[in-house]
Amino acid sequence: MTFSSKLIEKAVEAFASLPGIGRKTALRLVLHLLKQDKSTTEQFANALVSMREGIRECRICFNLADEETCQICADKRRDRSLVCVVENIRDLMAIEETGQFRGLYHVLGGVISPIEGVGPGDLNIDALLERLQGDEVREVIMAISPTIEGETTIYYLSKKLQPLGVQLSAIARGVSFGGDLEYADELTLGRSIVARVPYIGQ
Amino acid sequence: MTFSSKLIEKAVEAFASLPGIGRKTALRLVLHLLKQDKSTTEQFANALVSMREGIRECRICFNLADEETCQICADKRRDRSLVCVVENIRDLMAIEETGQFRGLYHVLGGVISPIEGVGPGDLNIDALLERLQGDEVREVIMAISPTIEGETTIYYLSKKLQPLGVQLSAIARGVSFGGDLEYADELTLGRSIVARVPYIGQ
Repeated sequence: MTFSSKLIEKAVEAFASLPGIGRKTALRLVLHLLKQDKSTTEQFANALVSMREGIRECRICFNLADEETCQICADKRRDRSLVCVVENIRDLMAIEETGQFRGLYHVLGGVISPIEGVGPGDLNIDALLERLQGDEVREVIMAISPTIEGETTIYYLSKKLQPLGVQLSAIARGVSFGGDLEYADELTLGRSIVARVPYIGQ
Repeated sequence: MTFSSKLIEKAVEAFASLPGIGRKTALRLVLHLLKQDKSTTEQFANALVSMREGIRECRICFNLADEETCQICADKRRDRSLVCVVENIRDLMAIEETGQFRGLYHVLGGVISPIEGVGPGDLNIDALLERLQGDEVREVIMAISPTIEGETTIYYLSKKLQPLGVQLSAIARGVSFGGDLEYADELTLGRSIVARVPYIGQ
């Protein structure tokens, strides 16, 4: 696609540099901005620049934060005795979405992956150990994806955390709600039978 | 979806205000920008603001332009005796993409639509008539979508242009290249038989 305007060309390239946006979609977005007032584009640009300039890592849990500590760590109503360890911010958001967890988080910033050259030293594990020095935290929930790297990370964490005397737990695994048994993978289905739970009638 | 950061919230809202981008995609784009340097977001924002501030309408053809006249009108190599009338910039770009047209354009800025309250006075028709006052233009090609509004506009234009003595033409219609006859709509197929062309062997 060629454009008869360098300004348009550059704006299209800007949008098309984002993941999942091709040049046709980029053009559609640019033409959309052209239909709106100039102030719309300014506000759009400002929202992104302010976000990128202002965003920080929470000094406690490494979540995204506007201040020194994130809104979750600063929230007095949350249960400070529970810490949920997650791989990244996306997983943290997914758990927040469920509305089922009212404790705090700890964002590792990845998982141990020798292939990708990520060792324990590259993750926020020391900071987690420091957080657990006091006796405020009672339980650490490891909400890490059940991949090979995730399992390695869980194993490593468990070895590091066990001496500290906090309760360790991992998220439950099994067949999804609404999931068809015949479509569940063998490993999940197998584990869900081994790790069966007592049936509590409604 | 709720975020523990107002800055993220606003950036997600900004992306999600664009057509075809939902909040999940918007979040993905924001997290992508967070992974890049601050300068990436600045350059992205600058490209959009510069475009929106700097873009103009070509004073000759109403195409998007960086200067007073667009690159197409300013290009001395293009055939100034041919003017292709299009509804909007998107159609102009589509024709440019084909690489089959080396004349100039005239962007109407819409089609006549009584239902939507668009009359001939709302379109760049007077400016077109003015362009045709000299004797530089030999032929006007009406490349307007074959909708009811499009046909109305073509009819209106033909009535206005015929007295000026320029040759009038409309883009060819028929079955698409690679199109299956059985899937062509009746009107198109019917017209393609009535308006059949002599076969020229290869």
